[in-house]
Amino acid sequence: MALIGKLVVCGVGLIGGSFALALKQAGAVERVVGVGRNPATLARAVELGVIDEIAAGWRDALDGADFVLLATPVGQLDAIMEAMAPHLQPGTIVTDAGSTKRDVIEAVYRRLDPHLATVVPAHPIAGAEKSGVEAGFPTLYRGKKVVVTPLPENRPDAVERVRAAWTACGATVVEMSPQDHDRVFAAVSHLPHLLAFGLVHDLAGRANAELLFSHAASGFRDFTRIAGSHPEMWRDICLANRQALLAELDQYLAELAYLRALLLAGDGTRLEQLFGEARRARDAWAAQFPPPSTAE
Amino acid sequence: MALIGKLVVCGVGLIGGSFALALKQAGAVERVVGVGRNPATLARAVELGVIDEIAAGWRDALDGADFVLLATPVGQLDAIMEAMAPHLQPGTIVTDAGSTKRDVIEAVYRRLDPHLATVVPAHPIAGAEKSGVEAGFPTLYRGKKVVVTPLPENRPDAVERVRAAWTACGATVVEMSPQDHDRVFAAVSHLPHLLAFGLVHDLAGRANAELLFSHAASGFRDFTRIAGSHPEMWRDICLANRQALLAELDQYLAELAYLRALLLAGDGTRLEQLFGEARRARDAWAAQFPPPSTAE
Repeated sequence: MALIGKLVVCGVGLIGGSFALALKQAGAVERVVGVGRNPATLARAVELGVIDEIAAGWRDALDGADFVLLATPVGQLDAIMEAMAPHLQPGTIVTDAGSTKRDVIEAVYRRLDPHLATVVPAHPIAGAEKSGVEAGFPTLYRGKKVVVTPLPENRPDAVERVRAAWTACGATVVEMSPQDHDRVFAAVSHLPHLLAFGLVHDLAGRANAELLFSHAASGFRDFTRIAGSHPEMWRDICLANRQALLAELDQYLAELAYLRALLLAGDGTRLEQLFGEARRARDAWAAQFPPPSTAE
Repeated sequence: MALIGKLVVCGVGLIGGSFALALKQAGAVERVVGVGRNPATLARAVELGVIDEIAAGWRDALDGADFVLLATPVGQLDAIMEAMAPHLQPGTIVTDAGSTKRDVIEAVYRRLDPHLATVVPAHPIAGAEKSGVEAGFPTLYRGKKVVVTPLPENRPDAVERVRAAWTACGATVVEMSPQDHDRVFAAVSHLPHLLAFGLVHDLAGRANAELLFSHAASGFRDFTRIAGSHPEMWRDICLANRQALLAELDQYLAELAYLRALLLAGDGTRLEQLFGEARRARDAWAAQFPPPSTAE
Protein backbone atom coordinates (compact mmCIF):
# COMPACT_ATOMS: atom_id res chain seq x y z
CA MET A 1 0.00 0.00 0.00
CA ALA A 2 1.31 3.43 -0.88
CA LEU A 3 2.26 5.87 1.87
CA ILE A 4 -0.42 8.28 0.64
CA GLY A 5 -3.65 7.33 -1.09
CA LYS A 6 -5.12 10.62 -2.30
CA LEU A 7 -2.67 13.52 -2.36
CA VAL A 8 -3.95 17.05 -2.92
CA VAL A 9 -1.44 19.62 -4.20
CA CYS A 10 -2.50 23.25 -4.09
CA GLY A 11 -0.14 25.20 -6.35
CA VAL A 12 1.39 22.87 -8.95
CA GLY A 13 4.53 24.93 -9.65
CA LEU A 14 8.16 23.90 -9.16
CA ILE A 15 7.73 23.03 -5.48
CA GLY A 16 4.32 21.36 -5.52
CA GLY A 17 4.90 19.69 -8.88
CA SER A 18 8.27 18.26 -7.88
CA PHE A 19 6.76 16.92 -4.63
CA ALA A 20 4.09 15.07 -6.63
CA LEU A 21 6.60 13.75 -9.16
CA ALA A 22 9.00 12.60 -6.43
CA LEU A 23 6.28 10.72 -4.55
CA LYS A 24 5.06 9.13 -7.77
CA GLN A 25 8.58 8.04 -8.67
CA ALA A 26 8.99 6.55 -5.18
CA GLY A 27 5.69 4.68 -5.50
CA ALA A 28 4.56 6.53 -2.38
CA VAL A 29 1.28 7.95 -3.69
CA GLU A 30 -1.74 6.46 -5.45
CA ARG A 31 -3.49 9.50 -6.89
CA VAL A 32 -2.61 13.18 -7.14
CA VAL A 33 -5.29 15.83 -7.37
CA GLY A 34 -4.43 19.42 -8.24
CA VAL A 35 -6.07 22.61 -6.99
CA GLY A 36 -5.10 26.11 -8.06
CA ARG A 37 -6.10 29.52 -9.27
CA ASN A 38 -4.95 28.99 -12.86
CA PRO A 39 -6.90 26.39 -14.93
CA ALA A 40 -4.29 26.45 -17.73
CA THR A 41 -1.51 25.55 -15.29
CA LEU A 42 -3.58 22.70 -13.88
CA ALA A 43 -4.33 21.42 -17.39
CA ARG A 44 -0.61 21.53 -18.23
CA ALA A 45 0.14 19.66 -14.99
CA VAL A 46 -2.17 16.86 -16.11
CA GLU A 47 -0.49 16.77 -19.55
CA LEU A 48 2.94 16.55 -17.92
CA GLY A 49 1.80 13.76 -15.60
CA VAL A 50 2.45 15.89 -12.51
CA ILE A 51 -1.15 15.46 -11.32
CA ASP A 52 -3.75 12.88 -12.28
CA GLU A 53 -6.85 15.04 -12.07
CA ILE A 54 -8.07 18.55 -11.41
CA ALA A 55 -10.41 19.17 -8.48
CA ALA A 56 -13.52 21.22 -9.15
CA GLY A 57 -13.03 22.98 -5.83
CA TRP A 58 -12.02 22.39 -2.24
CA ARG A 59 -15.06 20.22 -1.43
CA ASP A 60 -14.14 17.89 -4.28
CA ALA A 61 -10.42 18.04 -3.53
CA LEU A 62 -10.67 17.26 0.17
CA ASP A 63 -13.22 14.45 -0.14
CA GLY A 64 -11.30 11.39 1.04
CA ALA A 65 -7.96 13.20 0.92
CA ASP A 66 -5.08 11.66 2.92
CA PHE A 67 -2.54 14.40 2.56
CA VAL A 68 -2.60 18.03 1.41
CA LEU A 69 0.44 20.07 0.38
CA LEU A 70 -0.06 23.82 0.14
CA ALA A 71 2.66 25.04 -2.23
CA THR A 72 1.60 28.54 -3.21
CA PRO A 73 3.34 31.82 -2.37
CA VAL A 74 2.86 32.36 1.36
CA GLY A 75 0.72 35.48 0.84
CA GLN A 76 -2.12 33.26 -0.45
CA LEU A 77 -2.15 30.79 2.40
CA ASP A 78 -4.53 32.63 4.72
CA ALA A 79 -7.25 32.81 2.04
CA ILE A 80 -6.59 29.23 0.97
CA MET A 81 -6.92 27.92 4.51
CA GLU A 82 -10.14 29.89 4.94
CA ALA A 83 -11.52 28.34 1.74
CA MET A 84 -10.53 24.80 2.61
CA ALA A 85 -11.58 24.88 6.29
CA PRO A 86 -15.26 23.97 5.84
CA HIS A 87 -14.35 20.90 3.78
CA LEU A 88 -11.33 19.59 5.66
CA GLN A 89 -12.02 16.16 7.13
CA PRO A 90 -10.66 14.90 10.45
CA GLY A 91 -7.51 12.90 9.94
CA THR A 92 -6.42 14.51 6.68
CA ILE A 93 -2.79 15.60 7.04
CA VAL A 94 -2.10 19.16 5.89
CA THR A 95 1.35 20.63 5.39
CA ASP A 96 2.79 23.57 3.47
CA ALA A 97 5.98 24.51 1.68
CA GLY A 98 6.10 28.14 2.71
CA SER A 99 9.50 29.84 3.03
CA THR A 100 8.38 31.57 6.22
CA LYS A 101 6.78 29.88 9.18
CA ARG A 102 5.55 32.29 11.84
CA ASP A 103 3.04 33.94 9.49
CA VAL A 104 1.85 30.57 8.15
CA ILE A 105 1.33 29.33 11.69
CA GLU A 106 -0.66 32.46 12.57
CA ALA A 107 -2.90 31.69 9.59
CA VAL A 108 -3.26 28.07 10.74
CA TYR A 109 -4.47 29.17 14.18
CA ARG A 110 -6.81 31.70 12.58
CA ARG A 111 -8.32 29.44 9.93
CA LEU A 112 -7.82 25.79 10.83
CA ASP A 113 -8.27 25.81 14.60
CA PRO A 114 -10.30 22.56 14.76
CA HIS A 115 -7.53 20.74 12.86
CA LEU A 116 -4.40 21.70 14.78
CA ALA A 117 -3.58 18.04 15.50
CA THR A 118 -3.00 17.33 11.81
CA VAL A 119 -1.69 20.58 10.30
CA VAL A 120 2.13 20.36 10.28
CA PRO A 121 3.99 23.41 8.91
CA ALA A 122 7.17 22.74 6.92
CA HIS A 123 9.62 24.32 4.49
CA PRO A 124 11.61 22.41 1.85
CA ILE A 125 14.96 24.11 1.25
CA ALA A 126 15.22 23.78 -2.50
CA GLY A 127 16.22 26.31 -5.13
CA ALA A 128 13.17 27.86 -6.69
CA GLU A 129 14.52 30.45 -9.11
CA LYS A 130 13.02 28.57 -12.04
CA SER A 131 9.33 28.61 -11.30
CA GLY A 132 6.23 27.12 -12.84
CA VAL A 133 4.82 23.71 -13.56
CA GLU A 134 7.25 23.08 -16.43
CA ALA A 135 10.20 23.51 -14.03
CA GLY A 136 9.28 20.59 -11.75
CA PHE A 137 11.35 17.41 -11.66
CA PRO A 138 11.24 14.32 -9.43
CA THR A 139 14.76 14.64 -8.00
CA LEU A 140 14.52 18.27 -6.88
CA TYR A 141 14.49 17.32 -3.19
CA ARG A 142 17.12 14.60 -3.28
CA GLY A 143 19.83 15.43 -0.76
CA LYS A 144 18.04 18.66 0.24
CA LYS A 145 16.80 19.64 3.67
CA VAL A 146 13.21 20.05 4.76
CA VAL A 147 12.59 22.00 7.95
CA VAL A 148 9.49 20.93 9.87
CA THR A 149 8.20 23.32 12.56
CA PRO A 150 5.56 21.26 14.39
CA LEU A 151 2.80 22.89 16.43
CA PRO A 152 2.50 21.92 20.11
CA GLU A 153 -0.97 20.62 19.18
CA ASN A 154 0.32 18.30 16.42
CA ARG A 155 -0.29 14.59 16.87
CA PRO A 156 3.05 12.73 16.74
CA ASP A 157 1.79 10.46 13.96
CA ALA A 158 0.84 13.51 11.84
CA VAL A 159 4.36 14.90 12.16
CA GLU A 160 5.69 11.45 11.35
CA ARG A 161 3.62 11.22 8.16
CA VAL A 162 4.90 14.59 6.94
CA ARG A 163 8.47 13.51 7.70
CA ALA A 164 7.89 10.24 5.86
CA ALA A 165 6.54 11.98 2.76
CA TRP A 166 9.58 14.25 2.49
CA THR A 167 11.92 11.37 3.24
CA ALA A 168 10.30 9.48 0.36
CA CYS A 169 11.23 12.45 -1.86
CA GLY A 170 14.88 11.92 -0.91
CA ALA A 171 15.10 14.85 1.51
CA THR A 172 16.55 15.01 5.01
CA VAL A 173 14.05 16.30 7.57
CA VAL A 174 15.09 18.52 10.48
CA GLU A 175 12.95 20.17 13.17
CA MET A 176 13.21 23.78 14.33
CA SER A 177 11.05 26.28 16.17
CA PRO A 178 9.24 28.69 13.82
CA GLN A 179 11.13 31.60 15.43
CA ASP A 180 14.53 30.04 14.79
CA HIS A 181 13.46 29.08 11.28
CA ASP A 182 12.45 32.59 10.35
CA ARG A 183 15.60 34.17 11.81
CA VAL A 184 17.94 31.65 10.21
CA PHE A 185 16.40 31.94 6.75
CA ALA A 186 16.23 35.74 6.95
CA ALA A 187 20.02 35.60 7.23
CA VAL A 188 21.04 32.86 4.79
CA SER A 189 18.27 33.13 2.19
CA HIS A 190 15.91 36.10 2.37
CA LEU A 191 18.61 38.77 2.76
CA PRO A 192 20.78 37.39 -0.10
CA HIS A 193 17.73 37.40 -2.37
CA LEU A 194 16.95 41.01 -1.44
CA LEU A 195 20.59 42.00 -2.07
CA ALA A 196 20.71 40.29 -5.47
CA PHE A 197 17.38 41.76 -6.60
CA GLY A 198 18.63 45.18 -5.45
CA LEU A 199 21.92 44.99 -7.33
CA VAL A 200 20.36 43.95 -10.64
CA HIS A 201 17.59 46.53 -10.26
CA ASP A 202 20.17 49.23 -9.53
CA LEU A 203 22.31 48.38 -12.57
CA ALA A 204 19.36 47.85 -14.91
CA GLY A 205 18.20 51.40 -14.23
CA ARG A 206 21.48 53.03 -15.30
CA ALA A 207 21.90 54.99 -18.52
CA ASN A 208 24.84 52.70 -19.38
CA ALA A 209 23.09 49.48 -18.34
CA GLU A 210 23.83 47.79 -21.66
CA LEU A 211 27.57 48.46 -21.38
CA LEU A 212 27.59 47.23 -17.78
CA PHE A 213 25.71 43.99 -18.48
CA SER A 214 27.83 43.26 -21.55
CA HIS A 215 30.93 43.00 -19.33
CA ALA A 216 29.42 41.01 -16.49
CA ALA A 217 31.09 37.61 -16.14
CA SER A 218 30.90 34.41 -14.12
CA GLY A 219 31.13 36.06 -10.70
CA PHE A 220 28.18 38.29 -11.53
CA ARG A 221 26.31 35.31 -12.97
CA ASP A 222 26.47 33.36 -9.73
CA PHE A 223 25.99 36.36 -7.45
CA THR A 224 22.78 37.38 -9.24
CA ARG A 225 21.33 33.97 -10.05
CA ILE A 226 18.76 34.36 -7.26
CA ALA A 227 17.64 37.69 -8.76
CA GLY A 228 15.89 35.47 -11.32
CA SER A 229 13.56 34.22 -8.57
CA HIS A 230 9.79 34.52 -8.58
CA PRO A 231 8.75 38.13 -7.75
CA GLU A 232 5.40 37.35 -6.14
CA MET A 233 6.87 34.55 -4.02
CA TRP A 234 9.63 36.84 -2.80
CA ARG A 235 7.31 39.76 -2.20
CA ASP A 236 5.30 37.47 0.07
CA ILE A 237 8.41 36.17 1.86
CA CYS A 238 9.70 39.71 2.45
CA LEU A 239 6.37 40.84 3.87
CA ALA A 240 5.80 37.69 5.92
CA ASN A 241 9.28 37.75 7.45
CA ARG A 242 9.63 41.51 7.47
CA GLN A 243 10.74 41.85 11.08
CA ALA A 244 13.59 39.34 10.92
CA LEU A 245 14.59 40.52 7.44
CA LEU A 246 14.79 44.16 8.55
CA ALA A 247 16.99 43.10 11.47
CA GLU A 248 19.29 41.21 9.09
CA LEU A 249 19.35 44.08 6.60
CA ASP A 250 20.29 46.53 9.33
CA GLN A 251 23.10 44.31 10.54
CA TYR A 252 24.35 43.98 6.96
CA LEU A 253 24.14 47.76 6.46
CA ALA A 254 26.39 48.12 9.51
CA GLU A 255 28.84 45.69 7.90
CA LEU A 256 28.78 47.73 4.68
CA ALA A 257 29.30 50.94 6.64
CA TYR A 258 32.41 49.34 8.16
CA LEU A 259 33.65 48.21 4.75
CA ARG A 260 32.99 51.70 3.39
CA ALA A 261 35.07 53.24 6.18
CA LEU A 262 37.94 50.83 5.46
CA LEU A 263 37.80 51.72 1.76
CA LEU A 264 37.66 55.44 2.48
CA ALA A 265 40.65 55.17 4.81
CA GLY A 266 42.51 52.97 2.31
CA ASP A 267 43.02 50.45 5.12
CA GLY A 268 44.45 47.56 3.11
CA THR A 269 45.48 45.58 6.18
CA ARG A 270 41.99 45.39 7.63
CA LEU A 271 40.38 44.83 4.21
CA GLU A 272 42.67 41.88 3.51
CA GLN A 273 42.02 40.50 7.00
CA LEU A 274 38.24 40.74 6.55
CA PHE A 275 38.38 39.16 3.09
CA GLY A 276 40.59 36.39 4.48
CA GLU A 277 38.17 35.66 7.32
CA ALA A 278 35.28 35.53 4.85
CA ARG A 279 37.20 33.24 2.52
CA ARG A 280 38.13 30.83 5.31
CA ALA A 281 34.52 30.71 6.55
CA ARG A 282 33.19 30.18 3.00
CA ASP A 283 35.75 27.47 2.26
CA ALA A 284 35.04 25.68 5.55
CA TRP A 285 31.30 25.79 4.86
CA ALA A 286 31.71 24.55 1.27
CA ALA A 287 33.90 21.67 2.49
CA GLN A 288 31.40 20.68 5.18
CA PHE A 289 28.33 21.04 2.96
CA PRO A 290 29.20 20.02 -0.58
CA PRO A 291 26.45 20.65 -3.15
CA PRO A 292 23.90 17.82 -3.50
CA SER A 293 24.71 15.63 -6.46
CA THR A 294 21.43 16.34 -8.27
CA ALA A 295 20.93 19.53 -10.26
CA GLU A 296 20.24 22.46 -7.96
CA MET B 1 57.28 30.04 -36.33
CA ALA B 2 55.42 30.53 -33.04
CA LEU B 3 53.65 33.81 -32.30
CA ILE B 4 55.93 34.34 -29.29
CA GLY B 5 59.50 33.08 -28.93
CA LYS B 6 60.42 33.75 -25.32
CA LEU B 7 57.49 34.48 -23.02
CA VAL B 8 58.07 35.80 -19.52
CA VAL B 9 55.29 35.31 -16.97
CA CYS B 10 55.58 37.21 -13.71
CA GLY B 11 53.18 35.60 -11.22
CA VAL B 12 52.48 32.00 -12.21
CA GLY B 13 49.13 31.64 -10.45
CA LEU B 14 45.75 30.88 -12.02
CA ILE B 15 45.87 33.80 -14.44
CA GLY B 16 49.53 33.73 -15.50
CA GLY B 17 49.73 29.95 -15.46
CA SER B 18 46.59 29.50 -17.57
CA PHE B 19 47.92 32.05 -20.09
CA ALA B 20 51.14 30.05 -20.47
CA LEU B 21 49.28 26.74 -20.73
CA ALA B 22 46.83 28.12 -23.30
CA LEU B 23 49.62 29.50 -25.52
CA LYS B 24 51.53 26.23 -25.25
CA GLN B 25 48.44 24.24 -26.21
CA ALA B 26 47.90 26.57 -29.18
CA GLY B 27 51.51 26.15 -30.28
CA ALA B 28 51.83 29.90 -29.99
CA VAL B 29 54.91 30.04 -27.75
CA GLU B 30 58.38 28.48 -27.89
CA ARG B 31 59.63 28.93 -24.35
CA VAL B 32 58.08 30.14 -21.10
CA VAL B 33 60.19 31.67 -18.36
CA GLY B 34 58.75 32.30 -14.91
CA VAL B 35 59.54 35.13 -12.49
CA GLY B 36 58.03 35.54 -9.04
CA ARG B 37 58.46 36.15 -5.36
CA ASN B 38 57.95 32.56 -4.28
CA PRO B 39 60.60 30.01 -5.36
CA ALA B 40 58.41 27.06 -4.31
CA THR B 41 55.60 28.25 -6.58
CA LEU B 42 58.00 28.62 -9.49
CA ALA B 43 59.44 25.15 -8.88
CA ARG B 44 55.91 23.70 -8.82
CA ALA B 45 55.13 25.57 -12.07
CA VAL B 46 58.08 23.81 -13.73
CA GLU B 47 56.89 20.43 -12.40
CA LEU B 48 53.40 21.08 -13.75
CA GLY B 49 54.77 22.10 -17.15
CA VAL B 50 53.33 25.59 -16.80
CA ILE B 51 56.75 27.18 -17.31
CA ASP B 52 59.93 25.74 -18.83
CA GLU B 53 62.47 27.52 -16.67
CA ILE B 54 62.89 29.90 -13.76
CA ALA B 55 64.65 33.20 -14.33
CA ALA B 56 67.38 34.17 -11.85
CA GLY B 57 66.12 37.75 -11.93
CA TRP B 58 64.76 40.42 -14.23
CA ARG B 59 68.04 40.80 -16.17
CA ASP B 60 68.02 37.09 -16.98
CA ALA B 61 64.26 37.03 -17.63
CA LEU B 62 64.17 39.98 -20.01
CA ASP B 63 67.23 39.00 -22.03
CA GLY B 64 65.84 38.27 -25.48
CA ALA B 65 62.24 38.29 -24.23
CA ASP B 66 59.51 38.78 -26.84
CA PHE B 67 56.53 39.14 -24.57
CA VAL B 68 56.01 39.74 -20.85
CA LEU B 69 52.78 39.10 -18.93
CA LEU B 70 52.54 40.66 -15.46
CA ALA B 71 49.98 38.56 -13.61
CA THR B 72 50.44 39.46 -9.94
CA PRO B 73 47.97 41.27 -7.68
CA VAL B 74 47.87 44.88 -8.91
CA GLY B 75 49.37 46.23 -5.67
CA GLN B 76 52.73 44.71 -6.65
CA LEU B 77 52.91 46.13 -10.18
CA ASP B 78 54.55 49.45 -9.37
CA ALA B 79 57.50 47.75 -7.65
CA ILE B 80 57.71 45.11 -10.36
CA MET B 81 57.85 47.70 -13.13
CA GLU B 82 60.51 49.59 -11.22
CA ALA B 83 62.58 46.40 -10.93
CA MET B 84 62.24 45.40 -14.56
CA ALA B 85 62.74 48.86 -16.08
CA PRO B 86 66.58 48.82 -16.25
CA HIS B 87 66.55 45.48 -18.08
CA LEU B 88 63.65 45.93 -20.45
CA GLN B 89 64.80 45.86 -24.06
CA PRO B 90 63.29 47.92 -26.87
CA GLY B 91 60.73 45.93 -28.79
CA THR B 92 59.73 43.58 -25.96
CA ILE B 93 55.96 43.63 -25.58
CA VAL B 94 54.73 44.05 -22.00
CA THR B 95 51.15 43.55 -20.89
CA ASP B 96 49.41 42.86 -17.58
CA ALA B 97 46.34 41.06 -16.30
CA GLY B 98 45.37 43.55 -13.62
CA SER B 99 41.72 43.86 -12.67
CA THR B 100 42.04 47.65 -12.50
CA LYS B 101 43.54 49.81 -15.20
CA ARG B 102 43.94 53.45 -14.17
CA ASP B 103 46.34 52.65 -11.34
CA VAL B 104 48.33 50.24 -13.52
CA ILE B 105 48.64 52.89 -16.21
CA GLU B 106 49.84 55.44 -13.66
CA ALA B 107 52.56 52.98 -12.68
CA VAL B 108 53.47 52.44 -16.34
CA TYR B 109 54.01 56.19 -16.85
CA ARG B 110 55.95 56.38 -13.59
CA ARG B 111 58.22 53.35 -14.16
CA LEU B 112 58.34 52.45 -17.85
CA ASP B 113 58.29 55.85 -19.54
CA PRO B 114 60.88 54.97 -22.23
CA HIS B 115 58.80 51.95 -23.27
CA LEU B 116 55.32 53.42 -23.69
CA ALA B 117 55.15 52.27 -27.31
CA THR B 118 55.21 48.61 -26.29
CA VAL B 119 53.47 48.45 -22.88
CA VAL B 120 49.82 47.56 -23.51
CA PRO B 121 47.57 47.31 -20.41
CA ALA B 122 44.89 44.63 -20.44
CA HIS B 123 42.49 42.69 -18.21
CA PRO B 124 41.28 39.14 -18.87
CA ILE B 125 37.75 38.68 -17.50
CA ALA B 126 38.03 35.20 -16.06
CA GLY B 127 36.89 33.83 -12.71
CA ALA B 128 39.75 33.75 -10.27
CA GLU B 129 38.23 32.50 -7.03
CA LYS B 130 40.44 29.44 -7.16
CA SER B 131 43.91 30.84 -7.04
CA GLY B 132 47.43 29.47 -7.25
CA VAL B 133 49.58 27.64 -9.74
CA GLU B 134 47.70 24.36 -9.22
CA ALA B 135 44.46 26.03 -10.33
CA GLY B 136 45.65 26.94 -13.85
CA PHE B 137 44.25 25.19 -16.92
CA PRO B 138 44.69 25.81 -20.65
CA THR B 139 41.05 26.49 -21.47
CA LEU B 140 40.40 29.10 -18.77
CA TYR B 141 40.15 31.92 -21.33
CA ARG B 142 38.13 30.09 -23.98
CA GLY B 143 35.02 32.12 -24.74
CA LYS B 144 36.00 34.76 -22.15
CA LYS B 145 36.57 38.46 -22.78
CA VAL B 146 39.83 40.33 -22.50
CA VAL B 147 39.63 44.10 -22.21
CA VAL B 148 42.60 45.95 -23.69
CA THR B 149 43.04 49.60 -22.69
CA PRO B 150 45.79 50.84 -25.05
CA LEU B 151 47.88 53.91 -24.26
CA PRO B 152 47.88 56.75 -26.80
CA GLU B 153 51.63 56.08 -27.11
CA ASN B 154 51.19 52.38 -27.99
CA ARG B 155 52.46 51.26 -31.39
CA PRO B 156 49.60 49.66 -33.34
CA ASP B 157 51.63 46.49 -33.88
CA ALA B 158 52.23 46.18 -30.13
CA VAL B 159 48.50 46.34 -29.45
CA GLU B 160 47.99 43.84 -32.24
CA ARG B 161 50.45 41.37 -30.72
CA VAL B 162 48.71 41.53 -27.33
CA ARG B 163 45.36 40.98 -29.05
CA ALA B 164 46.82 38.05 -31.00
CA ALA B 165 48.18 36.38 -27.85
CA TRP B 166 44.81 36.52 -26.10
CA THR B 167 43.00 35.43 -29.25
CA ALA B 168 45.33 32.41 -29.37
CA CYS B 169 44.12 31.59 -25.83
CA GLY B 170 40.57 31.44 -27.17
CA ALA B 171 39.45 34.80 -25.75
CA THR B 172 37.56 37.64 -27.40
CA VAL B 173 39.39 40.96 -27.20
CA VAL B 174 37.58 44.26 -26.74
CA GLU B 175 38.99 47.78 -26.32
CA MET B 176 37.87 50.32 -23.74
CA SER B 177 39.22 53.46 -22.13
CA PRO B 178 40.81 52.85 -18.71
CA GLN B 179 38.21 55.15 -17.13
CA ASP B 180 35.29 53.20 -18.61
CA HIS B 181 36.96 49.93 -17.67
CA ASP B 182 37.36 50.87 -14.03
CA ARG B 183 33.81 52.20 -13.72
CA VAL B 184 32.24 49.21 -15.46
CA PHE B 185 34.12 46.64 -13.38
CA ALA B 186 33.51 48.50 -10.14
CA ALA B 187 29.80 47.92 -10.84
CA VAL B 188 29.68 44.37 -12.22
CA SER B 189 32.63 42.78 -10.43
CA HIS B 190 34.30 44.73 -7.63
CA LEU B 191 31.10 45.71 -5.81
CA PRO B 192 29.62 42.16 -5.93
CA HIS B 193 32.86 40.80 -4.48
CA LEU B 194 32.77 43.35 -1.67
CA LEU B 195 29.11 42.51 -0.95
CA ALA B 196 29.76 38.76 -0.87
CA PHE B 197 32.84 39.09 1.36
CA GLY B 198 30.79 41.35 3.63
CA LEU B 199 27.86 38.96 3.96
CA VAL B 200 29.99 35.93 4.80
CA HIS B 201 32.11 37.95 7.22
CA ASP B 202 28.97 39.27 8.92
CA LEU B 203 27.42 35.80 9.33
CA ALA B 204 30.69 34.12 10.33
CA GLY B 205 31.02 36.51 13.27
CA ARG B 206 27.63 35.64 14.78
CA ALA B 207 27.22 33.60 17.96
CA ASN B 208 24.92 31.25 16.01
CA ALA B 209 27.15 31.07 12.92
CA GLU B 210 27.17 27.29 12.92
CA LEU B 211 23.36 27.07 12.91
CA LEU B 212 23.15 29.67 10.14
CA PHE B 213 25.72 28.01 7.87
CA SER B 214 24.17 24.57 8.42
CA HIS B 215 20.95 25.78 6.76
CA ALA B 216 22.49 27.70 3.87
CA ALA B 217 21.51 26.17 0.52
CA SER B 218 22.11 26.55 -3.19
CA GLY B 219 21.13 30.23 -3.41
CA PHE B 220 23.65 31.08 -0.68
CA ARG B 221 26.24 28.87 -2.37
CA ASP B 222 26.09 30.82 -5.62
CA PHE B 223 25.67 34.23 -4.01
CA THR B 224 28.79 33.77 -1.90
CA ARG B 225 31.01 31.85 -4.33
CA ILE B 226 33.08 34.98 -4.97
CA ALA B 227 33.68 35.36 -1.22
CA GLY B 228 36.15 32.50 -1.75
CA SER B 229 38.32 34.83 -3.86
CA HIS B 230 41.94 35.71 -3.14
CA PRO B 231 42.10 38.22 -0.24
CA GLU B 232 45.33 39.97 -1.30
CA MET B 233 44.19 40.30 -4.91
CA TRP B 234 40.89 41.81 -3.82
CA ARG B 235 42.50 44.09 -1.26
CA ASP B 236 44.61 45.48 -4.08
CA ILE B 237 41.65 45.85 -6.43
CA CYS B 238 39.62 47.66 -3.77
CA LEU B 239 42.43 50.06 -3.03
CA ALA B 240 43.36 50.60 -6.69
CA ASN B 241 39.79 51.25 -7.78
CA ARG B 242 38.69 52.85 -4.53
CA GLN B 243 37.10 55.92 -6.06
CA ALA B 244 34.85 54.09 -8.54
CA LEU B 245 34.08 51.39 -5.99
CA LEU B 246 33.00 53.92 -3.35
CA ALA B 247 30.72 55.57 -5.91
CA GLU B 248 29.16 52.18 -6.72
CA LEU B 249 28.84 51.25 -3.07
CA ASP B 250 27.09 54.54 -2.32
CA GLN B 251 24.66 54.04 -5.18
CA TYR B 252 23.97 50.52 -3.91
CA LEU B 253 23.46 51.79 -0.35
CA ALA B 254 20.84 54.17 -1.76
CA GLU B 255 19.14 51.19 -3.42
CA LEU B 256 19.17 49.30 -0.11
CA ALA B 257 17.78 52.32 1.71
CA TYR B 258 14.90 52.34 -0.79
CA LEU B 259 14.33 48.60 -0.32
CA ARG B 260 14.43 49.08 3.45
CA ALA B 261 11.77 51.79 3.22
CA LEU B 262 9.54 49.52 1.10
CA LEU B 263 9.97 46.71 3.64
CA LEU B 264 9.25 49.00 6.58
CA ALA B 265 6.12 50.32 4.87
CA GLY B 266 5.05 46.81 3.89
CA ASP B 267 4.73 48.03 0.30
CA GLY B 268 4.17 44.73 -1.46
CA THR B 269 3.19 46.32 -4.75
CA ARG B 270 6.46 48.20 -5.18
CA LEU B 271 8.54 45.28 -3.85
CA GLU B 272 7.00 42.91 -6.39
CA GLN B 273 7.48 45.48 -9.16
CA LEU B 274 11.16 45.96 -8.28
CA PHE B 275 11.77 42.20 -8.05
CA GLY B 276 10.00 41.75 -11.39
CA GLU B 277 12.17 44.40 -13.07
CA ALA B 278 15.29 42.78 -11.66
CA ARG B 279 14.18 39.33 -12.79
CA ARG B 280 13.42 40.51 -16.32
CA ALA B 281 16.80 42.27 -16.58
CA ARG B 282 18.63 39.21 -15.21
CA ASP B 283 16.78 36.84 -17.54
CA ALA B 284 17.43 39.06 -20.57
CA TRP B 285 21.13 39.26 -19.70
CA ALA B 286 21.42 35.50 -19.14
CA ALA B 287 19.73 34.84 -22.49
CA GLN B 288 22.01 37.27 -24.33
CA PHE B 289 25.19 36.11 -22.61
CA PRO B 290 25.00 32.39 -21.95
CA PRO B 291 27.85 30.98 -19.85
CA PRO B 292 30.96 29.96 -21.83
CA SER B 293 30.96 26.24 -22.44
CA THR B 294 34.26 25.65 -20.58
CA ALA B 295 34.34 25.46 -16.79
CA GLU B 296 34.07 28.93 -15.29
